[in-house]
Amino acid sequence: MCVPACHEQIVRAISRRSFLRNASVVAATGLVAGCASPTDRPAETESEGRTIRYSRVVDLTHTLHEDFPTYFGARQLTIANKFTAEKDGFNLNEWTINEHTGTHLDSPFHFNGENSADRIPIESLVGPLAVIDLRARAAESADAQLTPDDIRAWESQHGPLPQGAIVALNSGWDARVMDSAGFRNADPAGTMHFPGFHVEVADFLLAERNVSGVIVDTLSLDYGMSPDFAFHFKWLTSNHWGIEGAANLSQLPASGATVVVGGPKIQGATGGPSRVIAFA
Amino acid sequence: MCVPACHEQIVRAISRRSFLRNASVVAATGLVAGCASPTDRPAETESEGRTIRYSRVVDLTHTLHEDFPTYFGARQLTIANKFTAEKDGFNLNEWTINEHTGTHLDSPFHFNGENSADRIPIESLVGPLAVIDLRARAAESADAQLTPDDIRAWESQHGPLPQGAIVALNSGWDARVMDSAGFRNADPAGTMHFPGFHVEVADFLLAERNVSGVIVDTLSLDYGMSPDFAFHFKWLTSNHWGIEGAANLSQLPASGATVVVGGPKIQGATGGPSRVIAFA
Repeated sequence: MCVPACHEQIVRAISRRSFLRNASVVAATGLVAGCASPTDRPAETESEGRTIRYSRVVDLTHTLHEDFPTYFGARQLTIANKFTAEKDGFNLNEWTINEHTGTHLDSPFHFNGENSADRIPIESLVGPLAVIDLRARAAESADAQLTPDDIRAWESQHGPLPQGAIVALNSGWDARVMDSAGFRNADPAGTMHFPGFHVEVADFLLAERNVSGVIVDTLSLDYGMSPDFAFHFKWLTSNHWGIEGAANLSQLPASGATVVVGGPKIQGATGGPSRVIAFA
Repeated sequence: MCVPACHEQIVRAISRRSFLRNASVVAATGLVAGCASPTDRPAETESEGRTIRYSRVVDLTHTLHEDFPTYFGARQLTIANKFTAEKDGFNLNEWTINEHTGTHLDSPFHFNGENSADRIPIESLVGPLAVIDLRARAAESADAQLTPDDIRAWESQHGPLPQGAIVALNSGWDARVMDSAGFRNADPAGTMHFPGFHVEVADFLLAERNVSGVIVDTLSLDYGMSPDFAFHFKWLTSNHWGIEGAANLSQLPASGATVVVGGPKIQGATGGPSRVIAFA
């Protein structure tokens, strides 16, 4: 489906050499969100291939440990040592772990959407990354939410979100990860305060863009004081995925990086700890 | 350090356009194993960047479930449902899982080498993949081992293993994964029979090549009847990593693919279930 001013967007996107200068996933077809149609596709050529250009591999994954901050507040990981080199010749542990711990995936099935973690198409776990900087607003208010206007502002600088993009909210929250109380940031009544995606972002992305997944550096896709998981419901039930608790988004350019989400492939999983790797 | 005939190797590698035609990680420097030295490095240019070219994303990860075959034979994963959409509005499980289950990482620390899974440099989890086809020999004998001669034969066709390569042994064993008894292939005395890496491969790679990690499609880096984990000991204690239980290696070209290992980042982990993704 072509959005209004589609051809203008294509011209802008194709001439956007700065977008290609760092790292990028570039498909010869379907470059502009909402503009792909069968007649837009050229015949298959060598340029059907995709390219990731990069000079740095950036780990967007926190090191997970038993005291890692959690949404519910209680410990969600215990590590039991089963074999040690001294006694047994090798080391081996067993984990007991809640699927939603550390830098982790929310699969659509977490909110009863279609795909459990193991059924998300592998192609959708790879994509060009748009990093939207909410750090200044988050420093002013821990209840800041990313809105469609923030995405439009990003696009006015970097061009339309590419097809299959992954949108990351960088609130700077990862800097608090060693301080569990500060990461949860609960008030005396127990309500948490940290940034997240406004529900209107789900409406906007689902209706007007073609985005595979979203990433946030806090404990939830919704902001901390959300009473109803409004973003989760819209985004996950529409069979999209999210990553919560990402690290190091500040090390990435606003556009041009590519992300690979090493999500768990456990049958029926509602999500799980993931290795999230960016190429920038 | 330059191996003998280094310049000849460089010329062969650089002229090897077929190597570049599919997908590849290409660094402008240090292209040939064992041949990088400070004086070989050109000044920093745009070509310092690396490129992954691909047309397919291939998932090298099996779907893990409670009855997935294990080295020790007993169940190594239990999934406990904690919240359901019907009762609670969302679905969430807790796993109890042995680190060495499913398609998984062996970190050096598994055999008391230096790096636990969380400390493996992220750059070493990405690399050009050499797939060595042992299927014919494995079909003749389940006790087949990959030897240095198999690597030399691969190199005679595809050029020297690139710097930072990842070497995969494709025995075709992934086709047995739905048949736990066939995957373990234990004889009446309990000794398992499946292919693996010969210990001499560790000696050869450590002394003469610069390889980050190895991948096997069976339950162990060592072949099933190994009495002493000889390959494990040499390879892991030298601070290298391995992946066991990979899937779909037969879908990849012998050379030209790039692999990204989404290993677990849990503090002190000896390994763990991983999402292994190839770009081909």
